[in-house]
Amino acid sequence: MWLIKDSPALFVDLYELTMAAVYFKKKMHDTAYFEVTIRRLPEHWGFFVMAGLAEVQSYLSEFRFTKEDTDYLRSTKLFSEDFLTYLSDLKPAVKIRSLPEGAVFFPNEPIFEVAGPLICAQILESYILNILGFSIIEATLAARTSIAAKGHALVDFGLRRCQGPVASVRCSRAAQMAGFAATSNLFAAKLLNFPPTGTMAHSFVQVHDSEEESFQNFAQSYGPNAILLVDTYDSIEGIKKAARVARQLCEQRRIKIRGIRLDSGDLVRLSKFARRHFQENDVSFLKIFASGDLDEFKIYDLLKQGAQIDGFGIGTRFAVSRFAPAVEIIYKLVQYGDKGVLKTSPDKQSRPGRKTIIRVKDKYYKKDIVSQLQVSPDDLLKPLESAEKIQTIQQRLTDELSALNDSIKTIRNPTKYPVEFS
Amino acid sequence: MWLIKDSPALFVDLYELTMAAVYFKKKMHDTAYFEVTIRRLPEHWGFFVMAGLAEVQSYLSEFRFTKEDTDYLRSTKLFSEDFLTYLSDLKPAVKIRSLPEGAVFFPNEPIFEVAGPLICAQILESYILNILGFSIIEATLAARTSIAAKGHALVDFGLRRCQGPVASVRCSRAAQMAGFAATSNLFAAKLLNFPPTGTMAHSFVQVHDSEEESFQNFAQSYGPNAILLVDTYDSIEGIKKAARVARQLCEQRRIKIRGIRLDSGDLVRLSKFARRHFQENDVSFLKIFASGDLDEFKIYDLLKQGAQIDGFGIGTRFAVSRFAPAVEIIYKLVQYGDKGVLKTSPDKQSRPGRKTIIRVKDKYYKKDIVSQLQVSPDDLLKPLESAEKIQTIQQRLTDELSALNDSIKTIRNPTKYPVEFS
Repeated sequence: MWLIKDSPALFVDLYELTMAAVYFKKKMHDTAYFEVTIRRLPEHWGFFVMAGLAEVQSYLSEFRFTKEDTDYLRSTKLFSEDFLTYLSDLKPAVKIRSLPEGAVFFPNEPIFEVAGPLICAQILESYILNILGFSIIEATLAARTSIAAKGHALVDFGLRRCQGPVASVRCSRAAQMAGFAATSNLFAAKLLNFPPTGTMAHSFVQVHDSEEESFQNFAQSYGPNAILLVDTYDSIEGIKKAARVARQLCEQRRIKIRGIRLDSGDLVRLSKFARRHFQENDVSFLKIFASGDLDEFKIYDLLKQGAQIDGFGIGTRFAVSRFAPAVEIIYKLVQYGDKGVLKTSPDKQSRPGRKTIIRVKDKYYKKDIVSQLQVSPDDLLKPLESAEKIQTIQQRLTDELSALNDSIKTIRNPTKYPVEFS
Repeated sequence: MWLIKDSPALFVDLYELTMAAVYFKKKMHDTAYFEVTIRRLPEHWGFFVMAGLAEVQSYLSEFRFTKEDTDYLRSTKLFSEDFLTYLSDLKPAVKIRSLPEGAVFFPNEPIFEVAGPLICAQILESYILNILGFSIIEATLAARTSIAAKGHALVDFGLRRCQGPVASVRCSRAAQMAGFAATSNLFAAKLLNFPPTGTMAHSFVQVHDSEEESFQNFAQSYGPNAILLVDTYDSIEGIKKAARVARQLCEQRRIKIRGIRLDSGDLVRLSKFARRHFQENDVSFLKIFASGDLDEFKIYDLLKQGAQIDGFGIGTRFAVSRFAPAVEIIYKLVQYGDKGVLKTSPDKQSRPGRKTIIRVKDKYYKKDIVSQLQVSPDDLLKPLESAEKIQTIQQRLTDELSALNDSIKTIRNPTKYPVEFS
């Protein structure tokens, strides 16, 4: 899943390597333990969902400094030849303990631990944060959206609005984890073995001489896969034309097309009109899909207001979360050799030492206890081993959400889940 | 600059290809004209900066459907063999007119036009929006930050917080366009020929037995490049230790280290203390850098409050803009063959036909006039030709910002620049 032509090693902040060069010179090679945590929940969020481990594994397996990389580093005149030779042989020999993908977690919990010789463990910081931060945002957002959609189909339309090609794959994989039906992104669909889907654009309607002709052409070409976009000119007229085209094709060739897409206007009113109109015109097989700046809040509100919508496409506000465009995810040293370390900067105090998370539960999750590391079968952090199947991760996320109290997973103003630090 | 191993062609929404297959079947190959616009300015933004063209060019030059791609498309059972053969031979034979990189623009202006056979021009939509959207956000954010910083040095720390590796390069290139001093991202530094820079992390201080020892080790290794991070335990004490280490090294070996970095706390108070302390202790050569959730608003306020800061590192809020996590950038058909087309969806009405932007200016830019296409040497849209040098783009952005009235480029609550649609 490392998609870039080049080795990942140079996707690193310079300071990781300047610090490493000092460690090399001073022979500081004891084992360092770094833990990843997120400082706080974004507004309206009650939990986070772990994600990104498959990508971390491919990052580690591809990680190496190529000759081109060390040539570049030499050109900065900051590094000795000995150190460059050391880098060119370096393997990221680290051990990782982590929450599994699909598990829920809360602020300040240690969700991921990197243990290894100081240099190795240090220089992975920049890119591990890059992977985990956005993957967790997307997985949490996908889970929240799926809670709001209450079983209605969801589709990832994030490609055009996320920050790049790798970002688009992270969006789609989060969607897949959270049980979305499909993605519009063909590259991600192919890579992740996730169904691709789509409807039509306004331009398709516009290049035809009439809206009805465009609907006919599309319906005849795609039959049961055809979804007609009805809002290019007038949505009410568009709905009527779609019904006419669907009915004709059904009567003449026994083909039932899939449905329509609403992309603007009052989705409650339009969807109710469409449902009634389809029932009255013997095309009640037509599904009604909606899109247009949707997110978990709007989907929740639309369904509450009785919108007759069978599936939602989410793009802009899935590719970039409105309340969590970024999270304060940090990679902090907690132990070097056998010495626990801490920071006392204002607002950034850290707790020293390696840690365990224990979750107390009856029917629902009741509280988490974060304590000093103890070997316990109940510790939520497990050694990172071979990548899990997506089905395993989907099932875990489903189970985790079922075990979370409604007040924690509500879309707006959730209550705070108790986490004790002992 | 296309960094992904695979061809870019499959980074496309499925509907682009299902529409294309109908166009193929119906022999709809007339020239289509699509224009890219952004619907509105984010809160507090008064202008946009054009960016992304170098990446568009490399996208187009690498674009092709490989055998693996068409094999995948075949597996979806949506496409005919004829169409798959057509795709495997397809070159993106389009002509582009665009604002040049570094030019300023305003909502609803046509900033980029794609002209070509309908299928070619249509299927580029998803990824061109992906490139231009984030590149424009970052270039604008970089320009705004550089306005706020009033000549103080700026550094891109975006790598760990953006959405992926390609995103990180887009961040760094925007920083470079806007005259930032450097980036922490080594991959981007190498690719873009942009100076890399960095300081040290808290973990560097923590793995040493004392803060002072960590400062000595770092200062001795990097001399004039060394910047010491002073807030791991107590910033005031950290500043004093840094001064001591700097003074020693200067007295004993005539080496002047570069400075310190403040990463938390009251940056106004701490930086004033540091400046005074450095002057009183004969180390006034030490520069003071600051970081920690900074953005254009905070930088502006810090300088206004008299903070003694020589340079700023911006990360989280540069990688993801707080007020513009995404923009409503759209790719809309305006003409097919010789027929101007339009959309009448609520809130999404479009103006048909190809267009020209003329900018009226005296000393400052006064207004823009968007009119039907006319061949005019004053049209701001120019044919996209070979990539420009970064220096050319930097100079253009500098000139453009000088020509914008202060009230348009102020950081908060700018006035609206007049754009007439004739």
